[in-house]
Amino acid sequence: MGLNVYLSGEIHTDWREQIIEGAQGLDLTFTAPVTDHAASDDCGVAILGAEPDKFWHDRKGALMNAIRTRKGIEDADVVVVRFGDKYKQWNAAFDAGYAAALGKSLVILQPEAHDHALKEVDAAALAVARTPEQVVGLLRYVLTGALPD
Amino acid sequence: MGLNVYLSGEIHTDWREQIIEGAQGLDLTFTAPVTDHAASDDCGVAILGAEPDKFWHDRKGALMNAIRTRKGIEDADVVVVRFGDKYKQWNAAFDAGYAAALGKSLVILQPEAHDHALKEVDAAALAVARTPEQVVGLLRYVLTGALPD
Amino acid sequence: MGLNVYLSGEIHTDWREQIIEGAQGLDLTFTAPVTDHAASDDCGVAILGAEPDKFWHDRKGALMNAIRTRKGIEDADVVVVRFGDKYKQWNAAFDAGYAAALGKSLVILQPEAHDHALKEVDAAALAVARTPEQVVGLLRYVLTGALPD
Amino acid sequence: MGLNVYLSGEIHTDWREQIIEGAQGLDLTFTAPVTDHAASDDCGVAILGAEPDKFWHDRKGALMNAIRTRKGIEDADVVVVRFGDKYKQWNAAFDAGYAAALGKSLVILQPEAHDHALKEVDAAALAVARTPEQVVGLLRYVLTGALPD
Amino acid sequence: MGLNVYLSGEIHTDWREQIIEGAQGLDLTFTAPVTDHAASDDCGVAILGAEPDKFWHDRKGALMNAIRTRKGIEDADVVVVRFGDKYKQWNAAFDAGYAAALGKSLVILQPEAHDHALKEVDAAALAVARTPEQVVGLLRYVLTGALPD
Amino acid sequence: MGLNVYLSGEIHTDWREQIIEGAQGLDLTFTAPVTDHAASDDCGVAILGAEPDKFWHDRKGALMNAIRTRKGIEDADVVVVRFGDKYKQWNAAFDAGYAAALGKSLVILQPEAHDHALKEVDAAALAVARTPEQVVGLLRYVLTGALPD
Amino acid sequence: MGLNVYLSGEIHTDWREQIIEGAQGLDLTFTAPVTDHAASDDCGVAILGAEPDKFWHDRKGALMNAIRTRKGIEDADVVVVRFGDKYKQWNAAFDAGYAAALGKSLVILQPEAHDHALKEVDAAALAVARTPEQVVGLLRYVLTGALPD
Amino acid sequence: MGLNVYLSGEIHTDWREQIIEGAQGLDLTFTAPVTDHAASDDCGVAILGAEPDKFWHDRKGALMNAIRTRKGIEDADVVVVRFGDKYKQWNAAFDAGYAAALGKSLVILQPEAHDHALKEVDAAALAVARTPEQVVGLLRYVLTGALPD
Repeated sequence: MGLNVYLSGEIHTDWREQIIEGAQGLDLTFTAPVTDHAASDDCGVAILGAEPDKFWHDRKGALMNAIRTRKGIEDADVVVVRFGDKYKQWNAAFDAGYAAALGKSLVILQPEAHDHALKEVDAAALAVARTPEQVVGLLRYVLTGALPD
Repeated sequence: MGLNVYLSGEIHTDWREQIIEGAQGLDLTFTAPVTDHAASDDCGVAILGAEPDKFWHDRKGALMNAIRTRKGIEDADVVVVRFGDKYKQWNAAFDAGYAAALGKSLVILQPEAHDHALKEVDAAALAVARTPEQVVGLLRYVLTGALPD
Repeated sequence: MGLNVYLSGEIHTDWREQIIEGAQGLDLTFTAPVTDHAASDDCGVAILGAEPDKFWHDRKGALMNAIRTRKGIEDADVVVVRFGDKYKQWNAAFDAGYAAALGKSLVILQPEAHDHALKEVDAAALAVARTPEQVVGLLRYVLTGALPD
Repeated sequence: MGLNVYLSGEIHTDWREQIIEGAQGLDLTFTAPVTDHAASDDCGVAILGAEPDKFWHDRKGALMNAIRTRKGIEDADVVVVRFGDKYKQWNAAFDAGYAAALGKSLVILQPEAHDHALKEVDAAALAVARTPEQVVGLLRYVLTGALPD
Repeated sequence: MGLNVYLSGEIHTDWREQIIEGAQGLDLTFTAPVTDHAASDDCGVAILGAEPDKFWHDRKGALMNAIRTRKGIEDADVVVVRFGDKYKQWNAAFDAGYAAALGKSLVILQPEAHDHALKEVDAAALAVARTPEQVVGLLRYVLTGALPD
Repeated sequence: MGLNVYLSGEIHTDWREQIIEGAQGLDLTFTAPVTDHAASDDCGVAILGAEPDKFWHDRKGALMNAIRTRKGIEDADVVVVRFGDKYKQWNAAFDAGYAAALGKSLVILQPEAHDHALKEVDAAALAVARTPEQVVGLLRYVLTGALPD
Repeated sequence: MGLNVYLSGEIHTDWREQIIEGAQGLDLTFTAPVTDHAASDDCGVAILGAEPDKFWHDRKGALMNAIRTRKGIEDADVVVVRFGDKYKQWNAAFDAGYAAALGKSLVILQPEAHDHALKEVDAAALAVARTPEQVVGLLRYVLTGALPD
Repeated sequence: MGLNVYLSGEIHTDWREQIIEGAQGLDLTFTAPVTDHAASDDCGVAILGAEPDKFWHDRKGALMNAIRTRKGIEDADVVVVRFGDKYKQWNAAFDAGYAAALGKSLVILQPEAHDHALKEVDAAALAVARTPEQVVGLLRYVLTGALPD
């Protein structure tokens, strides 16, 4: 048994790298959105042509990013959604809802400070983790049955 | 043709009442989450027994509220999600993602200030409205073909 | 047994009225897109605000009309798609493909002149009719087993 | 992450070859309908026996081509539909509707002249491109996050 | 709880009438194909125009009848399929397979002489009955819990 | 908003009656399996003919009961599964798994003594209740937002 | 593009071998039911224990064969169903209905003598072939676009 | 044709090893839950942090184990559920219900003593086996058509 894992959410820290590195040797395939913030914001107009109106500039980019995001989530067995300390992060919560409706196994990675605000999201999840190490421990256990030392 | 409309999101202003009142006479059925904030937070423990730990207190309530939320969204033709000026509102974004994955017609009601932060959510929607009146106008048009005067 | 029938396609002749009138007395519920051409084109900007760019003007309207179109097709048992003599009518063919993928019973109403160009669409249909009277005859037979005199 | 891409629509120019060539080196698998116009028209009768009536001649071919078309669309992550300058191209619009109903990521490749006539089709798409190069740029970005120079 | 029951198969005896009469007073809705053999065979050409070739004559009729058959089966909770003593009855077995794949509750009404030939069909069913009275008894029990005297 | 509620599981106490009585006045529709133990065991052979082998005697009855059980669960919004003090009750756990896979809102009614043995079942549920009164309180809250006094 | 092809139906001639041999070199994977008639009839009791009653003897075998049949059909892109000259062949028609309801591309291989009796089955198919060579020609065309010489 | 087989249920005897060993050489992939009882009970708290309350201690573990269980069942062609002599084994029955609702081919491995109590579970299955050797015989037959000597 292997698992496809989609890593959604916060793009300002190296939590994805920590998970991928920590999980080396396990039968896991990771996917993620484009995490280059500028490219992600401007992809639509850079590729398909400029828009004078910021709203449609954003729309063009968001639609294009959705091709990757949907593919990643739909192919995933496990969707890990990371909520960081800052920003609205509505796309992270949107991905969590999208994944939940598709019946994906959802893991939320969040600081305790967000517990109350995320209670509906957490209630749809199979695990709430505090650190990337815990996510690695969870993935290792699910695949191998081994608990951390 | 009638429409079932689920009104998700912000619970601190009377936007739901404005839509329901404005849409009188149209063949619409409205549903919504429990909007009494205190009841919504405490329902789990009030009905099923106290929890000393706040995390599980919240979990019990969020799971119970999910019975109503899922029923509302799954039965809806149109899901309107309102983002207000304040708070994290991750449950609103979660509902939007959930509705999008189920193929529901999504309408987002939001102030312009949130446009960039909501661009992924908006890109999954069939309309972005600024006022409850616009939502009423949209529902009237969809049902009757009549434009506002 | 009753049937929900969605009448898609051409909006410049009275074929819908002919079918609805001819089918009086049968247990049928008809739905259709907004057939007021000007309202259908301008609904998005009339309700949600003007767009200087014609492309996004059209997009806003098309997204709003999709709320009605999808509801109509998804609730239908039978989708009748009319191709007239003129215009591109790509939205009619799009609706036919959409309905086919959902497993709806598809009836195409078309002049013989279009037979070769519509062969892929017709191949997904359960009937190809030439006149509204034939569609009425078909609906009557499906509901009652009665053939035309 | 790799992507399966179905290239639907116009068969009179080399747009498919341009995309496939431009996308060399990316983790993409391309499928397409049979693009030999004569073979596509006559396959049914050539393999299963002649039909004196042109309508059923066409039907036999269209049904046979549907085996390939459905397989291509159903296995695809991305469906690119090209509308050329000429002809009715209703099968292209039908494919777009079919793909949309299945939740595929839809990309429309069209000249500006068709923008108004294709507005409903475009509204179901995640991108509207003008050139095969733009489609290549989009696919490269979705897979690698890299924008054009 | 009420049940929609589709009565498929043999059209040469009055088994449908026996079931419907026997089940009077129960919360049941019955549907069935057109059981007028001649009308069923000729509906396609009678309504949509003659075909010189018997194969396409039959095809036109079979496609038209499929509108009713699919609606009946898809809306049914229980599909009763009757195999009589004579004829090929492949459409009955086809309906049984169609209903089974949709997860419908399947009841087969057949003489013992067919038991071996129908073993794959029976294995997909929830009951194999010998008489219309048994089917009535089954429907009464399912709805009310009452056994025959 | 109304709710369909299927009451699965233990048939030796009056827990169903307590819930139905306690919930009077709420917009609820209740369904349940046949709760007459003897009828439920013997329905297959009583209606379709005796079986000398107890295994097939049981099989005939279980298949017939499945018509009602599946209809009840598939139409339900909420599935309440009651585990009593005694017996294996594997059909109750089977119903819970069946309902969970269909995405139904699951409520488990169980004594504390079973908590550890039911932990996988409970983890798929949206609520674990101890008394019929709690189930009534939950249903009232979900429909009306009102908490118990 | 490759295709999975399930070969259902008649087991008394070598039509499967003719297709598999004729299609050598094409990207096809063939599956089929167990075609050893005696093994297919007796598998249930041979593996799980004897049954004195022929009805349950047959049932045990039919259920076991369904594991293979369902897997074959559910994984198939194309389901070819062969009707021979003799026998009831209800399992073939059942497979055709099962495949049709799952949206599989259906090809029927039948003698002309059966055309009228199979008209409902044929109407759900994308091709009706007379010989294994025609099926090979069809599969070659679908994969490569090449017509027979 | 190969098969994915999920081995659910009893974890106190070596029935899984017997099946896997007996089936060597067949094109089978086996998955199973974590069968280390202590690890399975404590995984949630060991990885995500301690819980003072046993109920939530169990919940955390059960949710985590569900990631593996759901993946195993959803990817399986055949789900074998073993009921042993002892314990409640409600998770086994839950898995059987879950698999049945997803349309998986279900095989139950049980002692005769449980036949009456498991009759509803067995009625949803395609085979009831008494020994691991019988399960191996079934899998060999399904894949190769060969009966035991």
